[in-house]
Amino acid sequence: MATAVTPPRGMRDFLPAEKARRERVLQRIRSVYRAHGFDEIETPVVEDSARLHAGLGGDNEKLAFAVMKRGLTTDALAEAATPLDLADLGLRFDLTVPLARFYASNRGHLPSVFRAIQIAPVWRAERPQKGRFRQFVQCDIDIIGEPGIIAEAELITATAAALDALGVPGCSIRVNDRRLLMAWLAAFDVPETLRPAALISMDKLDKIGLDGVVDELLAIGVARAAEMVEGVDSAAAGDQSWRMLDLPVFADQPATADLRSLRAAVGAMPLVFDPFLVRGMGYYTGPIFEVAHPELGYSLGGGGRYDGMIGRFLGTEVPACGFSLGFERLIDLVELGDELDDGAALLYERDADLATVMAVKNAVVADGARVRLLARPKNMKSALEQLEAEGFTRFAVIDRDSTADAATLDWRRLKDR
Amino acid sequence: MATAVTPPRGMRDFLPAEKARRERVLQRIRSVYRAHGFDEIETPVVEDSARLHAGLGGDNEKLAFAVMKRGLTTDALAEAATPLDLADLGLRFDLTVPLARFYASNRGHLPSVFRAIQIAPVWRAERPQKGRFRQFVQCDIDIIGEPGIIAEAELITATAAALDALGVPGCSIRVNDRRLLMAWLAAFDVPETLRPAALISMDKLDKIGLDGVVDELLAIGVARAAEMVEGVDSAAAGDQSWRMLDLPVFADQPATADLRSLRAAVGAMPLVFDPFLVRGMGYYTGPIFEVAHPELGYSLGGGGRYDGMIGRFLGTEVPACGFSLGFERLIDLVELGDELDDGAALLYERDADLATVMAVKNAVVADGARVRLLARPKNMKSALEQLEAEGFTRFAVIDRDSTADAATLDWRRLKDR
Repeated sequence: MATAVTPPRGMRDFLPAEKARRERVLQRIRSVYRAHGFDEIETPVVEDSARLHAGLGGDNEKLAFAVMKRGLTTDALAEAATPLDLADLGLRFDLTVPLARFYASNRGHLPSVFRAIQIAPVWRAERPQKGRFRQFVQCDIDIIGEPGIIAEAELITATAAALDALGVPGCSIRVNDRRLLMAWLAAFDVPETLRPAALISMDKLDKIGLDGVVDELLAIGVARAAEMVEGVDSAAAGDQSWRMLDLPVFADQPATADLRSLRAAVGAMPLVFDPFLVRGMGYYTGPIFEVAHPELGYSLGGGGRYDGMIGRFLGTEVPACGFSLGFERLIDLVELGDELDDGAALLYERDADLATVMAVKNAVVADGARVRLLARPKNMKSALEQLEAEGFTRFAVIDRDSTADAATLDWRRLKDR
Repeated sequence: MATAVTPPRGMRDFLPAEKARRERVLQRIRSVYRAHGFDEIETPVVEDSARLHAGLGGDNEKLAFAVMKRGLTTDALAEAATPLDLADLGLRFDLTVPLARFYASNRGHLPSVFRAIQIAPVWRAERPQKGRFRQFVQCDIDIIGEPGIIAEAELITATAAALDALGVPGCSIRVNDRRLLMAWLAAFDVPETLRPAALISMDKLDKIGLDGVVDELLAIGVARAAEMVEGVDSAAAGDQSWRMLDLPVFADQPATADLRSLRAAVGAMPLVFDPFLVRGMGYYTGPIFEVAHPELGYSLGGGGRYDGMIGRFLGTEVPACGFSLGFERLIDLVELGDELDDGAALLYERDADLATVMAVKNAVVADGARVRLLARPKNMKSALEQLEAEGFTRFAVIDRDSTADAATLDWRRLKDR
């Protein structure tokens, strides 16, 4: 075959060592979330196009892979006005839209406050680039049915516990509230039509600095931009950041009381109030949050309250909020200890009796080991090195004179060979 | 919303109890396969269309969901001769074609004999019916690079051990060899052009009986059909089934020696020689096998040797064989013991201090429990019943007078309430 055989563009194979590492990390996240009272669910990887494209996915909707209708004829092709007329399903681009659909489908079988774990791949047809893939895993927790700030407190606590269990220290969680952003813009007479653009500018603080944001706001027509940011310290951390909530524009808002309760509820965890935190998705309605790592220029995850979304599917308003960890960004930071695993290699001579080889293997497996069979190779040294690299710790040889009694095996440590 | 909100046609949501059960079963299968020396890998859920439709997937190729090219214009639509011209990817319909592609992509990083585990969903656009889904999980193990029958022995041993670990007793494994089927047809002068149709008829033995098979063979033009099945006992089990290999048509075949070695190698396991076992896929080249359950009219899994397939991707012949368990058929048969899980529910009064509630929750989680928070409901009885049904074993109440000291909680057993 002339062309290189590769996975589809922007997607990856996982070889045994990497797959094992990923599964261990996911298992650790899963078990923390479970301890905090969340339950794992699963939805199909595809959803009906009409639901994926209901306007809830923001820019990500445009990145959905479309799945074609089955049994299409050339007539159907001729009748289609646009290519998407030929698709009725799409690969999910996030786990939030499927969760809203899941809740609408299964509400009668779920507790009145439902805490969901979803650990699963999503797909986006993005231009592939370093660290950005077309299939990647998200780890989401969501609480559906709880209107109070206790939901946010549980989400943030569980997420911080997961980061802690993974050995990713030093993260802080930045919080804001969509209601505060809206109150802030309203207080400085930013017309509703300008607010989406204003939010986009404010979201660029990390890249263009406070002066840059003011310049952009002025440019789009926010006349009182300079006045707006008076008293706002975009670099504030800890107590200092929370003092900004005393500014008159924020002080008497219900959202401010919520954020203060939240801060008290999560206790020792470093929570930072960030008035410039925007979060891109239009569906957020209340508190929003993001995980910041001290050494990274991007967030490890984020979330917020999206009280309106489930009603779009269900027809009844149901409060909801969620927190998503970006697994692919996280995995490189994770420090896992060595896995305890009794790896035993059995090297058999090609003329050894097959039934004996299998009987010995089964006995060693039954004894609790992970057993790899290997025809005794010409180059023993290289084979033993590879076994050691794969985590095997001991080996024994089976030849034509060996018996099926595993107790007679002459085990040698791979390190001492 | 007027229409019912459901998952896409033929696909399923998994609620917490079912998801937990599925994951426990998968984890048990995974750990048996791992103990037997197999390593888990993962490939993307989609593959390039050209690879999926390389003629290796048999009838399943027609059932592949096609994924559209991105950024298609209406011009592209007008230029397409058939609908599939607009697709460049497809959801995998099995795990064997992706494995062959994976091996071709990553061979340099894999051991010379590579034992793969794949536990993952596949998709087929079948007409949905009871027990048949459009997204379902397969559990495959494969050995690539081993030409000898030891590979089949390892696959069958590991599969039987997995069934045993799942508490699905009484299964037998039916074996045959594509080379024996071909020798048999050749010995009775069945022309090559008739052989595919003859195999299809022979495969219907379960449904139409031996006489029915002979009638069908005669009808398609196999003149010596009656003579062909002389001495063949389609209901034979155990030693009786193996005695059929003494028939002159089978006795001197290399495949017969392989099957006899295989039987000796797998020891106590009930292996049945079944000369009518065909397995649908055209890519099999040697031994083939299927798991039969005493009470089911369908197999729980199957596999065989497919020495030619990897060469189709790699350009170099590499021997390979695999065994696939049909997870969706298996899961209903599995008997799992209860899971040990310390589920603790904390019922808080709405006027309790939020920071206290969260501090208590964190302390109980840190103590090793799975903790569910619940606002104290009006109907305590029904809430407690639901908690018990979800596996929680104890509960305590937090009110406005509670302190953050979890040691002061007054725990009650849910059973004794």
